Amino acid sequence: MEKNRLKDLLLNHTREEIQEEIDDIHPADLLELLEETEDEDQRRELLNDIPDDVVADIVEEMDDGDDQYEFLHMFPKNRRKEILDEMSDDELTDLVGELDEKEGREVFSELEPDDQQQVKQLLSYDPETAGGIMTTEYVYIFAKNTVADTLKYLQSVEDEEEIKSYLYVVDALDHLKGVVALRDIVRSSFDTKMMDIINDNVIAINYLEDQEEVANTFKKYGYSLMPVVDDDNKMLGIIEIDDILDVMEEETTEDMNLMAGMDSEEDVDSTLSESFKSRIPWLVVNLATAVLAAAVVNNFSGTIEKVVSLSAVMSIVTGMGGNAGTQSLTILVRGLSLGEVTKDNALRIFLKEIGVGALTGIVIGIIVGIGSMIFAHNPWFGVVAALAMLLNMIAANFAGYLVPVILKKMHVDPALASGVFVTTVTDCLGFFFFLGLATLFLPLLL
Amino acid sequence: MEKNRLKDLLLNHTREEIQEEIDDIHPADLLELLEETEDEDQRRELLNDIPDDVVADIVEEMDDGDDQYEFLHMFPKNRRKEILDEMSDDELTDLVGELDEKEGREVFSELEPDDQQQVKQLLSYDPETAGGIMTTEYVYIFAKNTVADTLKYLQSVEDEEEIKSYLYVVDALDHLKGVVALRDIVRSSFDTKMMDIINDNVIAINYLEDQEEVANTFKKYGYSLMPVVDDDNKMLGIIEIDDILDVMEEETTEDMNLMAGMDSEEDVDSTLSESFKSRIPWLVVNLATAVLAAAVVNNFSGTIEKVVSLSAVMSIVTGMGGNAGTQSLTILVRGLSLGEVTKDNALRIFLKEIGVGALTGIVIGIIVGIGSMIFAHNPWFGVVAALAMLLNMIAANFAGYLVPVILKKMHVDPALASGVFVTTVTDCLGFFFFLGLATLFLPLLL
Repeated sequence: MEKNRLKDLLLNHTREEIQEEIDDIHPADLLELLEETEDEDQRRELLNDIPDDVVADIVEEMDDGDDQYEFLHMFPKNRRKEILDEMSDDELTDLVGELDEKEGREVFSELEPDDQQQVKQLLSYDPETAGGIMTTEYVYIFAKNTVADTLKYLQSVEDEEEIKSYLYVVDALDHLKGVVALRDIVRSSFDTKMMDIINDNVIAINYLEDQEEVANTFKKYGYSLMPVVDDDNKMLGIIEIDDILDVMEEETTEDMNLMAGMDSEEDVDSTLSESFKSRIPWLVVNLATAVLAAAVVNNFSGTIEKVVSLSAVMSIVTGMGGNAGTQSLTILVRGLSLGEVTKDNALRIFLKEIGVGALTGIVIGIIVGIGSMIFAHNPWFGVVAALAMLLNMIAANFAGYLVPVILKKMHVDPALASGVFVTTVTDCLGFFFFLGLATLFLPLLL
Repeated sequence: MEKNRLKDLLLNHTREEIQEEIDDIHPADLLELLEETEDEDQRRELLNDIPDDVVADIVEEMDDGDDQYEFLHMFPKNRRKEILDEMSDDELTDLVGELDEKEGREVFSELEPDDQQQVKQLLSYDPETAGGIMTTEYVYIFAKNTVADTLKYLQSVEDEEEIKSYLYVVDALDHLKGVVALRDIVRSSFDTKMMDIINDNVIAINYLEDQEEVANTFKKYGYSLMPVVDDDNKMLGIIEIDDILDVMEEETTEDMNLMAGMDSEEDVDSTLSESFKSRIPWLVVNLATAVLAAAVVNNFSGTIEKVVSLSAVMSIVTGMGGNAGTQSLTILVRGLSLGEVTKDNALRIFLKEIGVGALTGIVIGIIVGIGSMIFAHNPWFGVVAALAMLLNMIAANFAGYLVPVILKKMHVDPALASGVFVTTVTDCLGFFFFLGLATLFLPLLL
């Protein structure tokens, strides 16, 4: 619905008219309208006639726990409790988990006892695992029924949102036994036995699986939802694919941020102080590594003093190495997070990276060599630059491969400040190769 | 199903037994088994009793057009035609579009006339837009019917895969008029009028929309599928959320690769020659920019000759600037691709980046200044280093903001080699600030 028509509906129509139309409006659009309304009183007026379940949907659309908390506190306590009661357990869990302790406890205390129990259970899972992103609200079906029975049962389900596009069958002890697609129910004749359309070869996700792995499983199978089970194949919940979109967004931001040496959660909306706190730690680490590179240069200050033109060319050797290392690193970090680097292909990838380093090193080395020779009017200057360039490009791709792979082996995120580490290698080695060779060839360079 | 059991089923059971079980096995698992089977004859044996529609599903699971082509050519022409006939139009379009011209024409010639027509139509859309990723295979429903009528109609649909979790209503001229969730059909009593459960406020995607925007729309609304319309609201197709996972993966790889100065499609599976071709162009560009930075240094060689310790510290100033610029750039590239940078917040983000540059510049500047002072036994050396550091950190964040924003304004991908551009700024300006100030303060440094 167009935004002005929506505003008009909420402000100028009766409660009855609003309630008739509101179910056809997506809560994301309602949230957008509210966010664009700066006047606090008008926001209240817009919300006035919206039913509690729709307000709950709006709260669920918000990305940030603090925003949700603030929004919920626009309402008096009684209505807030009604709204919380309409929210889904996984959203309540995220909210309670994201808030600081005092606020989290406050929200928790306003939940219904059964929600409290569910939230408590869900909070016990690591938020970045399958258990942490699953929801527990869905309906089971029964294998012994007919399609007509099942349709009648589904008609009796109170909360339509619990009917998903796949329905699961469990035994008396909650063990996952089968799955049937809703579309297979609707396209079977009414007297079909459910048994005949149930697939007993269900693909399930273990509750401990890391959310990045879960996303890769969804990508592999393309299902719109998947069941979560414990080690005994007991069904614990389901994960829906729209939550996987959020996981992928989160994981990508995390990878990119970590590679650059920042907090995994910083984004354009972060405040000045959040951004400062996110960036300064790795900048300080980078400073320490930069001092290391400077120490290498300082070690050769005698050589530079004699052939000052080395100081100009040395930054080319390190800069190009840094760039090549970042290319190699980017491919590896991406491959590792998509699960594309396996035992079978790791050696091939490693050798390829070294190969690319050698090939690009030869090309760039020749260009840099010829350029330096002309610049310094000395062929040996060119030889030194070309050799150093070649060695540093190989070292760059070596580091671009090894840094993320070693981090992964150490069970650290392979993206973590890997850019900082790789450029440390290319800076230190670049200076060392170039100035070291220059010192070796010094009599020929003078 | 466990892999060995699956292998046993395919190799040692009758065709009838296989056909009974095969529908419960996900084609991604079948593909994985085939990929792990290196022996060509055994692969043929595994495929022997799998029905054509399942083979078609396996082909659709493959990511790469050339692999699909090669796989299809394991079969005699007649069976290949049957398999192609079972594939969906959007997958056929991707296949024909990805192959080189000769192979593409060959595959096209083996399609049924109606598929040829659809594929021709779909090929006319840009593959990175909504039109390029949509499928045209789905069923419409009719607003005038009851739920019972609709269920009966759905039972008559031949291809179950055309029944999606949302069904659309169009008028005689194909204008999109409404949508109903499959779950709303199953939970309504049989005599409910479809009219009463149809939502006529359908959110649709324009066929020209860029796939990155489409992904953001899916993230906003969380629907498992969305309709695609032309400018007159005529329905052209649908996009399913599992294809959006692929789009997101593709767009992320593209962003990360472009930032590092590589081909958007390079990954760990690329061959040595593909990787070389992907990386060398931007390395050469980077070389040109590195020469620029070297020229700045060379311009101040007189100063370096007099105070050779400058040559060690100058790499700290540029290295730290490069790191800070990459941080800022990463945040902006990510924010731009998620659509989080808007007219309303652009100025705030810009000022924040400058603020972060100033704050981190002060902290890092003071450390570098004190360190340099001690290193050179000269307080003025420290002042020069601190000032240059501060200025370069501000310049770094300035460039980290401006480079992607300007690229976007020029309708170029904001990630495109932006890392190369930003480090050019931080290298050139870093050397200029530091060596320039040193030249200015030269009498005090000697």
